[in-house]
Amino acid sequence: MCVQDGLDPRARYTQDLVGAGHLIPLGVPGLFGRGGDFEGVITRFQALVRAEGQGDGAIEVHFPPIFNRAHYCSISHIHNFPDLIGSVHSFTGGEKEHRELVRKFENRAEEDWTRDLTPADSMLVPAACYPLYPGLKGTLPAQGSLYELVGWVFRHEPSDDPARMQIFRQREYVRLGTEDQATAHRDSWMQRARDLLQTVGLDAELVVANDPFFGRGGRMAKASQREQALKYELVVPITSTEKPTAVASCNYHRDYFGLAFDILSADGQPAHTACVGFGLERVALALFKTHGLDTASWPETVRQRLSLS
Amino acid sequence: MCVQDGLDPRARYTQDLVGAGHLIPLGVPGLFGRGGDFEGVITRFQALVRAEGQGDGAIEVHFPPIFNRAHYCSISHIHNFPDLIGSVHSFTGGEKEHRELVRKFENRAEEDWTRDLTPADSMLVPAACYPLYPGLKGTLPAQGSLYELVGWVFRHEPSDDPARMQIFRQREYVRLGTEDQATAHRDSWMQRARDLLQTVGLDAELVVANDPFFGRGGRMAKASQREQALKYELVVPITSTEKPTAVASCNYHRDYFGLAFDILSADGQPAHTACVGFGLERVALALFKTHGLDTASWPETVRQRLSLS
Repeated sequence: MCVQDGLDPRARYTQDLVGAGHLIPLGVPGLFGRGGDFEGVITRFQALVRAEGQGDGAIEVHFPPIFNRAHYCSISHIHNFPDLIGSVHSFTGGEKEHRELVRKFENRAEEDWTRDLTPADSMLVPAACYPLYPGLKGTLPAQGSLYELVGWVFRHEPSDDPARMQIFRQREYVRLGTEDQATAHRDSWMQRARDLLQTVGLDAELVVANDPFFGRGGRMAKASQREQALKYELVVPITSTEKPTAVASCNYHRDYFGLAFDILSADGQPAHTACVGFGLERVALALFKTHGLDTASWPETVRQRLSLS
Repeated sequence: MCVQDGLDPRARYTQDLVGAGHLIPLGVPGLFGRGGDFEGVITRFQALVRAEGQGDGAIEVHFPPIFNRAHYCSISHIHNFPDLIGSVHSFTGGEKEHRELVRKFENRAEEDWTRDLTPADSMLVPAACYPLYPGLKGTLPAQGSLYELVGWVFRHEPSDDPARMQIFRQREYVRLGTEDQATAHRDSWMQRARDLLQTVGLDAELVVANDPFFGRGGRMAKASQREQALKYELVVPITSTEKPTAVASCNYHRDYFGLAFDILSADGQPAHTACVGFGLERVALALFKTHGLDTASWPETVRQRLSLS
């Protein structure tokens, strides 16, 4: 046993999670494999989210972890969050270029083989719902549209905090329509998501979100986001009680995606959109933090709710 | 209705799949979202694979779609399959560099903003089991080890064939141990996987694999792979009867990963490894091709086997 006192709480919780087999370190900060029990909790929590939304008539869609680079370039993510992006690069040369690539690769302490790569037609997905919007170009039905999806999200923010992974999954319900339809979706899910988390013993607090917009210019965007109260987060202590972690968010995008991808509501105006998203790894991390590392010792009500008993 | 005669069979099947809501085009060849029914078939087929392997005592692990760049650099994937790689690049500059990045981005018809990015610590995963091996450094128990995993795999091979996606999922059982343990795993799964596919109405043929090693040097590797009969594939017609598509493979890696990642079998020799992998999207594509686009009309035996009835 190692003495844990003095360890940063984030490093300590990571150590506990790795020791219990829940996380598998991959040698890069914020990059982990997941053990079977950890994954099982995520699977069961997802079933609860689906059950909660079941009566709403959402259309189920799934997207892979990468999406069209041209679609990425249609939004302003690179202006707001350049430090988080993941651009996919490939090798498109012939045999001669390959010999040169391999030469540099073999000599990689001195040379940068990656300069011989070219940008592929794809980017890693920065938020689970981004790949949805480009395909919805056109006019929505009068009642708007509702989608459910789950996907992998990449954010390049290497960290010692196990709750700040570089790649993780979000499960979302996305609403498109008029301003009223979009804000009603966001507002109703603030309560529904909070209640849902409560049923698995997570006492989440609702706060106005504070996204990490980049740089000095970002300070204005950040202030504006707070002032307009566009996005709310449900936060739970994971590695800090002072700075609890968002495990879900309810986000109203105004007509940002409607304008970017020519999506119109039935009245001919650019569609407004809103989504509720659950950070699945963070929910699991909050559950293991709150109830203990062994699901067998979790409170019986929580075990039943997650079909663990 | 459009006239379909004259259309390439791959384009025609893609059109059918998109029309039925099974695939959602993302505007890049080989990049698709998945509809709810398509995903449901994958979920149910995975349950069958798990049920088949359940008694074998495999340890369940899960890895994200990216893994450690240093681990990628420990194997010779870049020598053999440079054209398939996906390297993740990020922006690590400050505010000044960001202004320059955005300037180039705004002027991207003329300038290449991606040259301002730097390689991140991660690569897209080229085969689902690659992230497993580095963490197993050390000596295996006498009986060896068995893992089950599922993960996203990236291969940069833009194609009109819906069965040749750029990103897809593999479910695998990976065996590590002595040469006998590894080859026994591969050999037994040739029959088990074939039988499993038969139960859902897929009449798969077992063939020696022919991996697309790159370039002239690759021709030797390809011949050697065939000659040693290291890898077998189970192929089913999807978009071509002459060139049926591999929906599963049984691969013996000799001591390739044992040597690369210092994994020893109990006798102190570099571990030998073997895996069976199911290409989940391809299995679903083969099922929709064989039984029709609407799961409601699939043969009752297949529907029952996949818990669709």
